[in-house]
Amino acid sequence: MARAATQFARVQRVEADQCGFRRDFLAVEEPLEIRLKFQSQGKMVEQSLSITMRTPGHDTELAAGFLLTEGIIQSHGDLASIRPAKTLRAKQESCNTLVVELNPGVKFDPAKLTRHFYTTSSCGVCGKASLEALRMQQCPLIPKDRPLVGDDVIRHLAGKLRREQSVFDKTGGLHAAGLFDVDGQLMGLYEDVGRHNAVDKLIGHQLLDQRIPLNEYLMMVSGRSSFEIVQKAMMAGIPMLAAVSAPSSLAVDLARQFGMTLMGFVREGRFNIYTGEHRVQLS
Amino acid sequence: MARAATQFARVQRVEADQCGFRRDFLAVEEPLEIRLKFQSQGKMVEQSLSITMRTPGHDTELAAGFLLTEGIIQSHGDLASIRPAKTLRAKQESCNTLVVELNPGVKFDPAKLTRHFYTTSSCGVCGKASLEALRMQQCPLIPKDRPLVGDDVIRHLAGKLRREQSVFDKTGGLHAAGLFDVDGQLMGLYEDVGRHNAVDKLIGHQLLDQRIPLNEYLMMVSGRSSFEIVQKAMMAGIPMLAAVSAPSSLAVDLARQFGMTLMGFVREGRFNIYTGEHRVQLS
Repeated sequence: MARAATQFARVQRVEADQCGFRRDFLAVEEPLEIRLKFQSQGKMVEQSLSITMRTPGHDTELAAGFLLTEGIIQSHGDLASIRPAKTLRAKQESCNTLVVELNPGVKFDPAKLTRHFYTTSSCGVCGKASLEALRMQQCPLIPKDRPLVGDDVIRHLAGKLRREQSVFDKTGGLHAAGLFDVDGQLMGLYEDVGRHNAVDKLIGHQLLDQRIPLNEYLMMVSGRSSFEIVQKAMMAGIPMLAAVSAPSSLAVDLARQFGMTLMGFVREGRFNIYTGEHRVQLS
Repeated sequence: MARAATQFARVQRVEADQCGFRRDFLAVEEPLEIRLKFQSQGKMVEQSLSITMRTPGHDTELAAGFLLTEGIIQSHGDLASIRPAKTLRAKQESCNTLVVELNPGVKFDPAKLTRHFYTTSSCGVCGKASLEALRMQQCPLIPKDRPLVGDDVIRHLAGKLRREQSVFDKTGGLHAAGLFDVDGQLMGLYEDVGRHNAVDKLIGHQLLDQRIPLNEYLMMVSGRSSFEIVQKAMMAGIPMLAAVSAPSSLAVDLARQFGMTLMGFVREGRFNIYTGEHRVQLS
């Protein structure tokens, strides 16, 4: 069942010299539970993996992308199926719970479910420990010197992303993530109330089409780039990440440590490069 | 130990007709672990409650606010202490882990730690179940008809918030939450890489000063209002919430159900009211 990404609302608009009611669009936000079914000591086990607030639509892609970018699966071959949970009310069946079944050979450690954050006994929780923990995961390698992208391509990314944000146009309320090739051609775009969900949907779509790792592509996100967004890009093997707004300190640290190119304030005609300049060809 | 909210970075800036390196500021992002110490069956127990990526500074406020807005404590009186964890390396002691001790009489159910999301066996996960679950928590009541605020006050909130965002000025990369009285006077403002953290710091500060519930105030946030932000405002008893950008569908549902006033696209001179119009006095 396809679900709407927007819904109507009655809104009172107050302006400089007038005020009145009108109908407007809202971006839909609903919880999605992802449950994982896997073999443990010879038995099939099912347990809840995460609940996230997301905009309905492309939930299968979201679940697939989430599993990859959180390091639970490594490739398309690890997935047996992704299906709506059976609930007591048939109406709600395809609604807000998905069950992802892993193939028998895939190892999964339920201890990972206690949130994949990174504490060490020596220093407690810190950014350094977070980076360290990621390094010990099996990340796809990012090619050192590829791809090369001209600055002209990057100058136009923001405009291209913005022009394709159809739900944002209606609601003014959604994040977007777009995948571009080295010529600046848009390969896919997803919108969601959560930034990380837009990224997971985008990457999940590519995973289901068996195109991971995405070594020859750039990802562009609306808003800022945080540790989490850089991590997700890295887990998909994306070597270049561009964002409309600023990166955080840990986003830059992570990108530098793993050899990614990180760009911020990517607007029409200008941008900043925080690390990995060698992939940007200045004209 | 006070920690910096910004750090230097070397950035390559590419503009229309020039390009060069310069030093720039980044908003700092670091993980914070909140651990909870509480009595269970006559014994003192300590366990990890959450790990969040946040901008260092006002961590005590963040922890206090988080516990209130997530429904783990009801008032200042529930708190025995908030202290940095002792770790093996003395240097890191005040770094990124806080231990919050609850007073002996406070009931805490560790089952709540498995993320406070809302599944019911009849319909699975849905927005309706999320609203239902919140209604069953002990929320502070929001006064039905108070406060009353003139539209002139609301027209100037965005400008006032923006003028006080000192870290945003440096980095372009932080969310903000501000608390205003009915005359539009700014009572407190916090910035953070995470929207929900800025809100928790703001509310936590008021909690530590024993001013909860905040029945006579408005909160204004940069960015959008989601279910989570409305929930946090509600748990602090804030009757009016304004945001620079759009609300989600579930944010409007939640505000309506609990009698809050929710405003969006609050910019210099204009704004939208999604629900609770009766608190806004139009001139």
